[in-house]
Amino acid sequence: MAKSVLTPQSEDFPRWYQDVIAKAELADNGPVRGTMVIRPYGYSIWERMQSDMDRRIKEAGARNAYFPLFIPESYLTREAEHVEGFSPELAVVTHAGGKELEEPVVVRPTSETVIGEFMAKWTQSYRDLPLLLNQWANVVRWELRPRIFLRTSEFLWQEGHTAHATEEDARLYAKRIHEDVYAAFMREMLAMPVVLGRKTARERFAGATNTLALEGMMRDGKALQMGTSHELGQNFAKAFDITYLSDEGRQELAWTTSWGTSTRMVGGLIMAHGDDAGLRVPPRLAPVQVLVMVVKEGEGVVEAARQVVDDLVAQGVRAELDARVDTPFGRRAVDAELKGIPIRVEVGPRDLAEGSVTVARRIAGGKSAVGLRGLVPEVLSALDTDHEALYAAALAHKDAHTAAVATVDDAAEAARTGWATIPWADLGPEGEARLAESAITVRCLTMPDGSVPRSEDEAGVLAVVGRAY
Amino acid sequence: MAKSVLTPQSEDFPRWYQDVIAKAELADNGPVRGTMVIRPYGYSIWERMQSDMDRRIKEAGARNAYFPLFIPESYLTREAEHVEGFSPELAVVTHAGGKELEEPVVVRPTSETVIGEFMAKWTQSYRDLPLLLNQWANVVRWELRPRIFLRTSEFLWQEGHTAHATEEDARLYAKRIHEDVYAAFMREMLAMPVVLGRKTARERFAGATNTLALEGMMRDGKALQMGTSHELGQNFAKAFDITYLSDEGRQELAWTTSWGTSTRMVGGLIMAHGDDAGLRVPPRLAPVQVLVMVVKEGEGVVEAARQVVDDLVAQGVRAELDARVDTPFGRRAVDAELKGIPIRVEVGPRDLAEGSVTVARRIAGGKSAVGLRGLVPEVLSALDTDHEALYAAALAHKDAHTAAVATVDDAAEAARTGWATIPWADLGPEGEARLAESAITVRCLTMPDGSVPRSEDEAGVLAVVGRAY
Repeated sequence: MAKSVLTPQSEDFPRWYQDVIAKAELADNGPVRGTMVIRPYGYSIWERMQSDMDRRIKEAGARNAYFPLFIPESYLTREAEHVEGFSPELAVVTHAGGKELEEPVVVRPTSETVIGEFMAKWTQSYRDLPLLLNQWANVVRWELRPRIFLRTSEFLWQEGHTAHATEEDARLYAKRIHEDVYAAFMREMLAMPVVLGRKTARERFAGATNTLALEGMMRDGKALQMGTSHELGQNFAKAFDITYLSDEGRQELAWTTSWGTSTRMVGGLIMAHGDDAGLRVPPRLAPVQVLVMVVKEGEGVVEAARQVVDDLVAQGVRAELDARVDTPFGRRAVDAELKGIPIRVEVGPRDLAEGSVTVARRIAGGKSAVGLRGLVPEVLSALDTDHEALYAAALAHKDAHTAAVATVDDAAEAARTGWATIPWADLGPEGEARLAESAITVRCLTMPDGSVPRSEDEAGVLAVVGRAY
Repeated sequence: MAKSVLTPQSEDFPRWYQDVIAKAELADNGPVRGTMVIRPYGYSIWERMQSDMDRRIKEAGARNAYFPLFIPESYLTREAEHVEGFSPELAVVTHAGGKELEEPVVVRPTSETVIGEFMAKWTQSYRDLPLLLNQWANVVRWELRPRIFLRTSEFLWQEGHTAHATEEDARLYAKRIHEDVYAAFMREMLAMPVVLGRKTARERFAGATNTLALEGMMRDGKALQMGTSHELGQNFAKAFDITYLSDEGRQELAWTTSWGTSTRMVGGLIMAHGDDAGLRVPPRLAPVQVLVMVVKEGEGVVEAARQVVDDLVAQGVRAELDARVDTPFGRRAVDAELKGIPIRVEVGPRDLAEGSVTVARRIAGGKSAVGLRGLVPEVLSALDTDHEALYAAALAHKDAHTAAVATVDDAAEAARTGWATIPWADLGPEGEARLAESAITVRCLTMPDGSVPRSEDEAGVLAVVGRAY
C-alpha cells in the first residue's frame, strides 16, 4: 500500500532507511553536523526501550547515578589504549564563562575515567564491593561519516560501570549483563535473534581485556553491533587507583567492567524488521500497539471506536483512538503502516451495522472482519503471535544469509549478501587483516552451539564475519 | 541522635547543607569546577521526581523528544535579550574530531533556539498547533559561585517548549503547567507549600514576555525558585520564523512558551524539610519508605523481618530489609535518619518474643512498640499522616517567617530572617532596585488570596520579597 512512499529496500537500502526515518517522523538531522533530533514518535520507542532495560539492569543489582558531562582532559590520558582509541573523536571545550579555560575539558565520549576516579574514592574495603553503577546519559564522539541513530556525534545511552574484588566476579558480571540483561532484552523486547560472542583483539574496546558483543543482522545482510559488555581487567583500577582493603587486611586492586547500549538500537530495530511499507515495531515495544481508526463518521461509529479503545486499555493494551476523519482514511492507514503500529482496528458504519470491525495486521499481514465480542481476545492473541512471528522471520533471515565457509575468499564472497562463519583457527588475525582491506570484519567469535568462548583459543571457535554499520 | 554528625542548622546553615549532602551520600563535587556527581541515593530521589513529573507532563498533553546538546553559536544571537542573558554562562566547543571547528558550537544552556528552529519546520498549518514538546536533558551554565544541586555548571532538567496559534492559548498553557503540573507536584510529592506568582521585569527570563514562578521557603528563611513557566510572546517565533497557515489561509506567527524544573528541586527538598539529624524525605517521594532493620540476630528475627518486608511490599509500600548485623545498630539507625527514610521498623529478639516490633518515625518523631498484626495498617496510615505533617510544618514555617510590611526598610528587615510581603504599588521598580543593593529580590508578584495576577498593575498585587539561593 505504501510502496510509493518509500524507496524499496531492494533498490537502495540506505535510502530506504533515511526515507522511513523521515516519513515515520522518527528523527531529523540536527543543525550541528552529525547530531540528531529525536522526534516524539522516535523518542517514544526509545523511552520504552529505556524503561524495560532500566528494570532489567536494576534486577541485576546495579543502581543509577549521574556523572558529569565534562571530563578534565588529563583523565583521558591516564589509560594509554583508552586515550588512543578516543582521541580522534573528542569534542573539547576551551572557553567557558567568557574566559579561556586553564585546562580544556572534553565532552565525555564514555565515562570510565571519571567514574574510575569516584570508584577509587568510594571503594574502601571489600565490603564496598561489588560496586554496581549505571547511568543514562548523552555522550559525544565526533563522527566523520554520521548516520542517523547508527553513528551520531551525540547519542543517548546507558553505561554501566562496576568494580569487583576478583577477576572471576568481574567476568561473571560482564557475562550476566551480556546474556541475562542485553540478549534477553533484545530477544524479548526487540524480537531480535542476536549472535553473542567475544571480539577479537583488533575489535576490542579501547582499554578492555575482553569485549563481549551482541550482533544483529539487518535486512540487507549487514551486521549491527547492538551492545557490548567489557571486562576491563585492572587497567582502569591501576590508572585511577581503585583499591580496597581485602578481608585479609591487604590493599588490593579492584577489577572493573563497563557495558552499554544506546539509541543505536533504534536504528537496529528499524533495519532488522522494517519492510517496504515502513517500520514494524514488535508489540511489546510498540508505544501504540493498536490504533483504533474511525473510517468515516456514521451512527455510533465514534462511540463504538472509543469503546473498543477503552476495552483494550482495560486489558492492558496500549490502544489509541484515531478519529481524524477530516484526513483521508487512506493517508492515515499509510501513516500507521509507516509507523509500524502492529494492529489497526478499523471501525466503519457498514461493518458496525453487522456488529463487526476490520482488523488489519502490520506484521502478519492481511485484514479480516472480527465480531465486536471476540475482538479483545483476538487482539491479545495477535500481539503475542506477532512478537514470535517477527522473531522467527528475523531468525530465518539471518540463517538464510549466513554461510559456513572454510576459506577467506569464500568468507569475502558470503559477506556480499550476509555473514560467513569460518573456524577462527583457519582465519586468524592474518585472515582478519586481509578481510579488513575490503571493509569486512570479524563481528565476533562464537561457539557452534551459540555460546561464548572463554578464550579465542578454545577448540571449535567460529568467527562470524560480515560487513557492518 | 545524629546531632554530632552534622553541623546544626542554627549554627551554620550552608555548612549543614554541605554536610547532609556528603553524609547522606547524595552527591559529590565533580572534577571540573561547578559540576556534580549525583550518587545513587541522591539519584534515586531525582528518579522518583522525574517519573512522577513525567506522568503529569504527559497528562498535560506534551510529548517527549530529544534535541541536540550542541547549538550553533549563531542561533543564540537571533533573540537579542536571550543572548544577552546567557552569553556570560556559555561553554563553547571550539575543537572537535582533532580539528578547529569552522563555527564554534555552544553547549546548550537551554533549548529555546534549537527547538525554535525545528518548530518552524514542523509547524505548517493551524492543524499542527498546539505543538507540545518536552525533553529531559542536561544543560550547562558556567557558574561563578557553584553550590551543589542549587547552582551547578551542569544540571539535569526537563524543559517544555510549546507553540500555539493564539496568545491566549499560550498563556493558558503556561498557566496550566505552572499550576496544574508544577504546583500540584510540589504540593503532592514534595510536600512543599510553594508561593505562585509572576516575576517582575527585572527578574524575568531572558526573552520572555512573562515568567511565572514557584518559590519555596527554605528552613533558613531564604527563597528557592523551584520552577518557572514562561510566556515567550512572539519573540522566538519571530527569531526562528515559526509561522503557520491559519484556517483563514493567512500566514501567521505562532506564540510560544517554555517551562522547566531541575535537579535544583533536590536541593530545595533538602533545605525545606531537613533537620539537624539529616534529610526528611516526604513518603510519596521516598525511594525507601520503610527500612525494616534486624536489630540483632536471634531466633527467627531475620525471617520475621523478611516477612514484614514482604507484607509491606504486598501493600505497595517501598520497604527494604537491613540485615547488616555486622554493622552496629546505632550506626545503621543514624544512617537511616541521615537519609530521611520516613519509617524504621526495628525487629529484635526481645520485642519479637512478645509478638511486637518497634516503629521509629523520622517525620513525626518518636518510637513505639507495635504488634506484628497491626503493623501494616499502622505503617500505611503513618505514611499518609507524615506527608500531611511535613506539608503543614513547612507551611507554618513559611507563615511564621513572612511579614506583611509597608516600607522598603521594613521589607529589608524582614528579609534578614524570612520574607516580606509588600504592596507592589508601594514598592515598585525603584524600591526593588534599592533592595537589590542588599541582595534582596522580589521573588514574585502574587495576589493576597494566593492567585497569580494577570498583570503587575492589577489592584492589590503583593510583592514577595526575600533573599534567595
